[in-house]
This record gives sequence, C-alpha cells and structure tokens, in this order.
Amino acid sequence: MTEPFRVAIAGLGTVGAGVVEILQSNAAQVAMRAGRPVEIVAVNARDKAKERGVDVSAYEWVDDAAGLAGVEADAVIELIGGSDGPAYDLVKAALAGGKHVVSANKALLAHHGTELATLAEGHGVSLNYEAAVAGGIPIIKAAREGLAGNKMSAVYGILNGTSNFILTKMRESGRDFDDVLKEAQDLGYAEADPTFDVDGVDAGHKICLLASIAFGVQPEFNKVRMRGIREVTSADINFAAEFGYRIKLLGIAKDRDGLINITVEPCLVPEATPLGTVENAYNAVVVKGDFVDTPLLTGLGAGRGPTASAVVADIIDLARGLHVPTFGIPAKALKKPDFIDPATIKQHYYLRLTVTDQPGVIADVSAILRDHDASIESMVQHGRDPGQPVSVVLVTHDVKRGDIEAACEEISKLKSCLEKPYLMRIEHQL
Amino acid sequence: MTEPFRVAIAGLGTVGAGVVEILQSNAAQVAMRAGRPVEIVAVNARDKAKERGVDVSAYEWVDDAAGLAGVEADAVIELIGGSDGPAYDLVKAALAGGKHVVSANKALLAHHGTELATLAEGHGVSLNYEAAVAGGIPIIKAAREGLAGNKMSAVYGILNGTSNFILTKMRESGRDFDDVLKEAQDLGYAEADPTFDVDGVDAGHKICLLASIAFGVQPEFNKVRMRGIREVTSADINFAAEFGYRIKLLGIAKDRDGLINITVEPCLVPEATPLGTVENAYNAVVVKGDFVDTPLLTGLGAGRGPTASAVVADIIDLARGLHVPTFGIPAKALKKPDFIDPATIKQHYYLRLTVTDQPGVIADVSAILRDHDASIESMVQHGRDPGQPVSVVLVTHDVKRGDIEAACEEISKLKSCLEKPYLMRIEHQL
Repeated sequence: MTEPFRVAIAGLGTVGAGVVEILQSNAAQVAMRAGRPVEIVAVNARDKAKERGVDVSAYEWVDDAAGLAGVEADAVIELIGGSDGPAYDLVKAALAGGKHVVSANKALLAHHGTELATLAEGHGVSLNYEAAVAGGIPIIKAAREGLAGNKMSAVYGILNGTSNFILTKMRESGRDFDDVLKEAQDLGYAEADPTFDVDGVDAGHKICLLASIAFGVQPEFNKVRMRGIREVTSADINFAAEFGYRIKLLGIAKDRDGLINITVEPCLVPEATPLGTVENAYNAVVVKGDFVDTPLLTGLGAGRGPTASAVVADIIDLARGLHVPTFGIPAKALKKPDFIDPATIKQHYYLRLTVTDQPGVIADVSAILRDHDASIESMVQHGRDPGQPVSVVLVTHDVKRGDIEAACEEISKLKSCLEKPYLMRIEHQL
Repeated sequence: MTEPFRVAIAGLGTVGAGVVEILQSNAAQVAMRAGRPVEIVAVNARDKAKERGVDVSAYEWVDDAAGLAGVEADAVIELIGGSDGPAYDLVKAALAGGKHVVSANKALLAHHGTELATLAEGHGVSLNYEAAVAGGIPIIKAAREGLAGNKMSAVYGILNGTSNFILTKMRESGRDFDDVLKEAQDLGYAEADPTFDVDGVDAGHKICLLASIAFGVQPEFNKVRMRGIREVTSADINFAAEFGYRIKLLGIAKDRDGLINITVEPCLVPEATPLGTVENAYNAVVVKGDFVDTPLLTGLGAGRGPTASAVVADIIDLARGLHVPTFGIPAKALKKPDFIDPATIKQHYYLRLTVTDQPGVIADVSAILRDHDASIESMVQHGRDPGQPVSVVLVTHDVKRGDIEAACEEISKLKSCLEKPYLMRIEHQL
C-alpha cells in the first residue's frame, strides 16, 4: 500500500486552503500515519485568480465542480457547502463513480444523508464528514467507533461557535444581543446574514447528524425543532448567573425508549461544570452511553485549522483503508425515527416575566402555574418600582413542556403581564 | 464478512465481566456496528467458581492464561494486568500466533510497547489498548486517528481518577490527604496499596503511551518523572483557590523542537476552565496540535462500564477490519526519544514555605529568589503569629526549574525555614 492516495478538492475557501496547507506542510507526517503519501491531483474553486495563501499551481485546475468527479482520484473532498446545488451534484456523482467522499457539509448530510449513505454503500465507498460537526473535536469518530459498544440514549452540546461567542461576550460585557452581534460581524466571527448561526439552523444540522449515529436512525432535518438566541437578554444572563447557571445554545437529541426528540434551543446549564465553562468560540459535545457514562469532548468548532484538521483525518482514514458506514451501521438498517410529543417531556424551566410591579401579580402567576402542575423552585425580582415594569424570574421543578407552555400562554393574558413570557430549559446532566 | 468475530478473554475481574456483559446485553447492536456478530469462544480467570454477575458457562474455560493463545479465535482480550508475567507472556504468544490483541494493560504497553508493536506488525495483526488510558474517553483513537493530520506538541491531563477523587474531597471537606485516602479506601475507590494511584505511577504509564502516539516515539517508561499527591495539603488547596487555581495531578508530555519531557506531578490549573472543573473520579486529556488547537476530552477514567466500553470498541474496530499501527505509525519508524534537561524548562511556580513569623524572613527569601532569577508575581500569608510557624505562599513568574529548585534548596537552609519548601507547577494552557 505505498501507492499515493489521490484526492481532488472542490472548494478552496478558508477550509479548502487549510486542507491544502496541512497536506503540504505536514506531508511527511501524514504519509507516515496514512501508510502512504497523500497526493492532491486536482482542485476546483469559483475564482482561479484569487489569492489563497497556498500554492495550488501544481494541481490540475478544474473549472466546473462536477468535473472533479471525473478526475483520476481515490477520493473527492467536497468543501463547497450548501444542502443542494453543486455540492450535492458532485457528491452524488463521485460516489456513483466509485470514489470515496470527504465532506465538511453538515447541511448536505442532514438533508440527504440517507440517500448518500445508501449510494456510498451501493458503490462500496465511504462518505466521511468529521469536519461537518465541531471541526476541532473528533466527535463523529468517537460516536461511530469509540463508543460503538454502547446503547446511546442522548447526545447534546454546544455546536455553534458564533452563538457561544455572542453569549459569552454578552455575559462578560453586560451588553445586549444586537450590540454584540454587530461587533461579532465587524470582527468576522459572524456572517452578514447570521441566521444559520444565531437561529439554531447550523446547530440543528449538526445535532441531526449526531442523533443519526447515536440512535441508528435516518437523519430527518425537518423534524429538528430549532430556536436561537435572539431573544436572550443580558438580564437573562444575569438572572441565570444568580441561580448558578450559564446560558448556552444547546443541540439536544434524546432517545427515550425509541421515541426521539431533537431540538436546538438556549438552555441553562450549571456554570461550575465542564460544559458550563465552555466559552467563546469553543464547542462541546456530550454523549450518554449505557456503559461509558457521559464523556464530553471540547474544542474549537470552526475555523480554518480545526476544520481542515478534521478533513485531513478523514482522508488519512481512507488512505489507511479504514472504512465505517456513514452513520455507523448499514444504511438499510437505519430506522425511520419515531418522534416523541415534545409537550409530554418533563424538565426544569426558567421563566422570565415582564410585569407591572403591583400587589397580586405574583399571586396570579403562581395560581396559573399551580393550575398547570408547575411548581416553583425559586423566584427572584430585582429592585422595586411600584406601578412600573419589572422583570421577575421563576425556576420551576419538573413540569411537562405542554403544561408550562399553556401556563405561559395564560400568564401572557394577564393585564399585568407586559411582554410574552420567555421560557428556557434547564439542563442538569453535566 | 458475516462470519462471527471470535474473541478469547483472559481475566474476568471487574473489566472482564463488564466486557462479557456488554457483548451479551448489546449483542445485536454490536453485531450491527461490527458488520458481523462478535462471539466469545473462551475465557480464563484464576478462580472458575467465583461469582461474577455474568454467565460464562457457555464459553470454553481455559485454566491457564497462556492456553488462550492456542484457542481458535481471531483476537485475544488481555485483562489480566501487570507489566510482566502471565499478561506479557499471553500477549506475546497471541501476537506471535497471528491473533489480534486487545489489552487494557497500561503497564505492559508502557514497559514493552515497542517490542509488542514490532511483534504485532511482524505478524500482520493489531494491538489495541483504548481501555489502557482513561477508559471512558476515546483518547487513543482521537490521538492515533482523529488528530492524525496534526503535528502534536503536547498532550496532558488528569489521568488518575483516584487521585482526582482525593483532591476533590480534600478541597470540598478541608480534610487532609491521609484522612481522605482512608475514606477512599473504605469506599473501594482506592486500593489497599495506593502507591500506583497516588504516587503517579498509573498516570505515568498512561502519559507515556500518549506521548508515544503524539510524538511518534518509543515508549520509555523509565524516563517518566513522577511525583504524586501525598505532600499536597489542604492548606495548599486553599491557597491555590485564593489565586484562582485548583490542584490537579497532571500527566504532561511536551515536545519542544524534538526534545521531549514527560512528567506526572501535582499542578495548579485555573479553576474556571474546562480542565479545572474536572472533579471526582473524572479524567480529562488535552491534545495540542498545530492545526486543531487544543481539544479536551473528559470522562470517567476507570470503572467497569467505561473501561469495558473501551475494550468493546477495540473489538468492534477489529471485527470491522479497521487496523491502525500500535502507536499510529509503523513500529520501526518510532524514534528513540531525546529528552530535554528539565532544569532548563521555564514555568510559573507555586511555592509554599513554612517559616517562623519574624521580621526579615520575607526579605531573606526574596533575596534568594532574586539571586536565582525568580521574580515574584504574588505572595500571601494567612494570619500573623509572631515567633510561631506560619505558611507563606509565593507565585512566581516564569523561572527555570533548575533555578527555582536551587532557590528552594537555599531557602531550606535558612534558620527561619522550618520545613522543606513545597513546589508545584502552574499550568495555564487551559
């Protein structure tokens, strides 16, 4: 096995250029670990003339992404992005042509994972995507291989670095979401259109893939319920701190006796825990297995180096001859997931109300909560300002989501309730 | 590949029984992931009659561990333990006989790793040992495969659960080492002879193996410098907290331009970080790579479930046909490590002195430190008790270990210095 392993790279943006850089600068080490040299044979990008900080002149330039599928190569590296269009077409063509594929494309896998896994298996090739989820953390490998002896009942974590960066800055500076988002955009940490990051879509793609591996189910992105961090206020962050929590945008997938729930939402996690201390652009993933307990993996979730590192690890696996089914088991064995009715799930909740500071308000709210089986663990109001709007925060004991949402609905109709109540899950596992 | 993958298990203690339990209770899942059933064909232990909580009556019983090498099996699972004796003999015989080996034996690998890796490669078989280092954390796989694109310059972490449990209890209760150790022994968390755990030997075995994978060098356990936690006092823990640190027994391996240093010693780590918040019996490992930055993996380091989970993951890899060289590169490519002179390494230090509370002591100490190029970042003394012994703690800026040790030597000769000064590294990386 000393023939070079030949790769063709589609997409030379931040990650693509990083992959070229690793394969060039760590070539000897990569060859030693792969058991043979890894050779770039062709590249493709939109703009040939663009300065990328790496020299690609030695490789065949292919103008059309789809054309890479026809190049003489062992694997195609898809770093174009997008759930459809050129990325989808190229990956399908490459797999159908008997080429392995390495992709960093979470959207593609979350939308078309079952089809692509089936295609790969039908042609005896592998589809690797370590870089698609938390680049700096080898979580796909951990879940597909390292924890393969376990029945996994949950996987969850901080899966979007931009959101975590914003929440961290909000906490540190006391500033509000819009203000910090703008700074993050100016610094290049957030994109001009931040929707995918701050509204939970990016984390949704990732948790969807992790759930498929953990539970052996087909990825169904349209069933992932997502809520982002736009409504989190700096007041929430302060209240949470008072109760000993930090607010994190968590992707959470749980398998309760075959009934699955996959969500992305801002949650309160205890601050003095490994998960609670994951700040800035760092990601973290926890897997719960029946024997291994709850390992947690932390690292940079995005960026040139970590993402390219993940792509190269996938390439080295292929060059070494290591092949694992796309979602850890044969594609035809992936079950169609049954989803739980989220209204039935019990959880502790954080509830922020904006009410008029006047006698009787708390009595009204408490009565509504009682009528919906929600019992109050603690309550805090900052300051007093009779007749004026104040924030009141409640933390509940375990209550069904359906009940607490119905209670919120009712509370919002109180004359003294000035804004829609804001609800967040509390996650205690770590 | 639907023929069963046949394993023979040597050692049915806590871990061995756990492996049997997983292979029995998760059999369908394991078969799905492995691509074929995993079948136990033979077992061995010292006492056939012992109650183990699992039924092994269906498997061939082999009285003599060495006899397992002769059984018709694809892999031998060595869970006997010990760097020499039956474990060593069995592993050698199994590899020489063309059988794969899965082992949880850190001592064996740390002492004989190069020989066994060479033997395995010579016979075209694999030697897997995920369970040998931090059972609940797939760190061997992460280092050998997941981060394979990186030049790794450091790997370090909390590698001994017993020590971390003791340090955590000391911090929480304010009690001293001996007292907490006794409780840990009564609870079964520490062994009657706790030497391997609390004196750093166990962590030494583990960091030795991680260094070999990270840096591509032969394991040389006799070059690992180890110091345990027996001398850590509850006063140290309090002082450390005052400076914002927690005390952790860290295994640390660093590669400075080809010069390697491997140590186990109690260190101060910042408390509000993912590593600082790893408490009780949890382990944590950080890898520093040139592209991936510093991923951190946390999980239970020992115990039946996590360790057995790691063993089964290794078995599934073999059943799937995934084979990786023992230390990530061909055995013959492993370099003989060059070690750095530890005296030349610069670091921040924590220094606890027990001195007579009298004028001039601090002036004397400061002068000695100044004469050894050690500059003081902060200093604290609790209470005043003229003429009586008091603890004074100093935190230094970067200073060479040789210099600070020479300074300690000189300080210990002061008439006012009542005990040997106690020195700990401060690790800021995470």
